[in-house]
Amino acid sequence: MKTYAVIVAGGQGTRMGTAIPKQFLPLGGRPVLYYTIKAFVDAVPGITVVLVLPEEQISYNNMVLQHFEEIPELIIVAGGASRYESVRNGLDIVEEEDAIVFVHDGVRPFVSAALIRNCMDQAREKGSAIPCVTVTDSMRFCGEDGHKAIDRDKLRIIQTPQTFLAGPLLKAFAQEYRESFTDEASVMEQSGGEVFLIAGDKYNIKITTPEDLCIGEAILNMTAAK
Amino acid sequence: MKTYAVIVAGGQGTRMGTAIPKQFLPLGGRPVLYYTIKAFVDAVPGITVVLVLPEEQISYNNMVLQHFEEIPELIIVAGGASRYESVRNGLDIVEEEDAIVFVHDGVRPFVSAALIRNCMDQAREKGSAIPCVTVTDSMRFCGEDGHKAIDRDKLRIIQTPQTFLAGPLLKAFAQEYRESFTDEASVMEQSGGEVFLIAGDKYNIKITTPEDLCIGEAILNMTAAK
Repeated sequence: MKTYAVIVAGGQGTRMGTAIPKQFLPLGGRPVLYYTIKAFVDAVPGITVVLVLPEEQISYNNMVLQHFEEIPELIIVAGGASRYESVRNGLDIVEEEDAIVFVHDGVRPFVSAALIRNCMDQAREKGSAIPCVTVTDSMRFCGEDGHKAIDRDKLRIIQTPQTFLAGPLLKAFAQEYRESFTDEASVMEQSGGEVFLIAGDKYNIKITTPEDLCIGEAILNMTAAK
Repeated sequence: MKTYAVIVAGGQGTRMGTAIPKQFLPLGGRPVLYYTIKAFVDAVPGITVVLVLPEEQISYNNMVLQHFEEIPELIIVAGGASRYESVRNGLDIVEEEDAIVFVHDGVRPFVSAALIRNCMDQAREKGSAIPCVTVTDSMRFCGEDGHKAIDRDKLRIIQTPQTFLAGPLLKAFAQEYRESFTDEASVMEQSGGEVFLIAGDKYNIKITTPEDLCIGEAILNMTAAK
């Protein structure tokens, strides 16, 4: 069965205060995106990686590829104005309706092989796998009439790779864009598909600030020590 | 004006898989609680620290105190069966109605002096300050009829120190315990008090797993480098 990892890397690095977009910043001496791509290539032999980059960043890609001993099968696609559009551009590469498609944030380099494989297995069986983790802090909901406590046991933090059987996913992405499309699960639901959660991993974090890079180095050392 | 930091350290270390409770585990060679206590002592000169510990852990306290060059003013109180009860036991020490009381998790050692002082200023002015941060991941709400996307822009992650003017706080803690009391803000609201949010700090994390300790070391180095 054909598998695709659509890795979406749209960040400009503005919150980082750096000229280099965050997905190319070095983590343990290699760009963040190197780890993200390698996670999928190692976990799923034969996977096709579709890397969606802002047009002006496509030339940065050699910074990533030079770190691979064996260059992976990689297709680079220009991103769009929104995440929805970027993912849709990536999905243009997918033809087989029975393929499994992972849609993953480029700035989540610590996704484990176990999580990738669990997502693949569940998406094969049920059509989708949306990784999530429970909430350990108290939470509040801010509505129009002020804020109130919300039961954290009923909340889940959603991660990626959001994983789907290709057929229904391609159909969902043929819809017109809506503001409520914050992730692929919400796109899928809007087209009538059901989405199924799966246990994610607390350390599958997004790197979005310089401090996250420091924390990322710690996670990298932790993972390497295992 | 009198100030109190009620630091609640109830953990047993079971999730840590260690015999030593998590609040006493070493971070950069010193117990987690050392940093937590020091943060308040350094930020608010003259503060009284009320450390609430499970009865069987009170003897561990020398592990913490030996790291201080100057021993802070510290009152140790035995905890109760719930967080509510533990905080109430700590509040027994507070007598002045116009004092400012910080209630803080023992396992949040990275609370900054700026956050502590901002909380103090707001609690003086408005009666309360509940630190919170915005949510950067997609979120879902799991109800009885399945799960659905929830607008993350309307959610806040609540941290500590939850900070209050003593009078209304003591009155709120004179109520009978309810299951809905998940934090001090919820206790306060139940007694008719309004609570006011304030911007928290993303790195004011809780240390609850061995991996958090690794991340904690990174945050510690980051903070030391500033």
